[in-house]
Amino acid sequence: MTKTVRTNTDPFQFHYPAGATIVTSRGRGKDNAMSVAWHTAASRKPTIYLVSISPKRYTYDLIVESGEFVVNFMPRDQGDLVAMVAGCSGRDVDKFKEFRIVSNPGSKVGAAVLETAFAAYECKLMGRHTYGDHDLFVGEVVAVQWEASAFDANLTHDVENVPPLMYLGEDRYGTSVGSDYLDREELVKAARQGSSV
Amino acid sequence: MTKTVRTNTDPFQFHYPAGATIVTSRGRGKDNAMSVAWHTAASRKPTIYLVSISPKRYTYDLIVESGEFVVNFMPRDQGDLVAMVAGCSGRDVDKFKEFRIVSNPGSKVGAAVLETAFAAYECKLMGRHTYGDHDLFVGEVVAVQWEASAFDANLTHDVENVPPLMYLGEDRYGTSVGSDYLDREELVKAARQGSSV
Repeated sequence: MTKTVRTNTDPFQFHYPAGATIVTSRGRGKDNAMSVAWHTAASRKPTIYLVSISPKRYTYDLIVESGEFVVNFMPRDQGDLVAMVAGCSGRDVDKFKEFRIVSNPGSKVGAAVLETAFAAYECKLMGRHTYGDHDLFVGEVVAVQWEASAFDANLTHDVENVPPLMYLGEDRYGTSVGSDYLDREELVKAARQGSSV
Repeated sequence: MTKTVRTNTDPFQFHYPAGATIVTSRGRGKDNAMSVAWHTAASRKPTIYLVSISPKRYTYDLIVESGEFVVNFMPRDQGDLVAMVAGCSGRDVDKFKEFRIVSNPGSKVGAAVLETAFAAYECKLMGRHTYGDHDLFVGEVVAVQWEASAFDANLTHDVENVPPLMYLGEDRYGTSVGSDYLDREELVKAARQGSSV
């Protein structure tokens, strides 16, 4: 297959789907929420997670001021909430009140853990780095919360029981299915035997 | 629902599924490949993408030395390749030869763009930050390559035509389905009307 090549990278959504999250923060007397699809794990021990946020966002100010945030991983049935949270700013509205978001404060941070999230990472800000039009907010994961029904005995996501919400770009959303086990060592062994024939 | 709370965050895979990628690098006379599930966009203009890589990996040395890498986004039918690439080190084997990986050099970088990737970001290293047991490798996306059949007219991923490979942790893989349009502005409007009744 011949690939299209372009150095003008707009619209920059070739990397989706990505898990749809709501990042919560708390400050100036209220909770705020922001939909974020740019996020990743950064370290296993200690556990570190990062989100990328534009300085234009109200959440940006609240995390800088509080040094805390929570990454809430959202199931498919919360697509409307994720889209609504993305559709307005905490500067203009109290999203928790407007959208009747049910939550509790984190166990280790003040930012909110959403009732409908299937998992949440409570983070304390370790570092911030400006790259282009966003900043990386790097957080130590000081506590994890999760819904038992969303995970199997190995704490791997059971996507059949609690389908996750995946973001595709351009206000499009889907979910993830399947959980095939691929034995890396067996596959390598088989490939080597095959290539030596 | 009552969430389980834990400050011991092991096994740290509550954030999956994530898109399965193969990060390629080139140096010391050969191409190398590594499976990476820790990656995210960092900026739209300029386009910046990052991957998180352990200093234990051979890819780590090659990116530090070359200042270049490619993030290859893999379709579901390449699960075996992603697992095999994850199952051995470029220090021990030539993965491109061993697994008969078909590729071309990038248009702007020397690292390889895989024939079977549905999209690829060619990156030049802008910055590197150590966090815990991994480093963030932050790259300016100097070129994008993609398979036209994997995207619709808006360049949104057509997951029905080319299903992506999603990583779930613990050597488990699935894919992503669905592409529902959620109109954020309409949803906000409806919620506000509802809450004022």
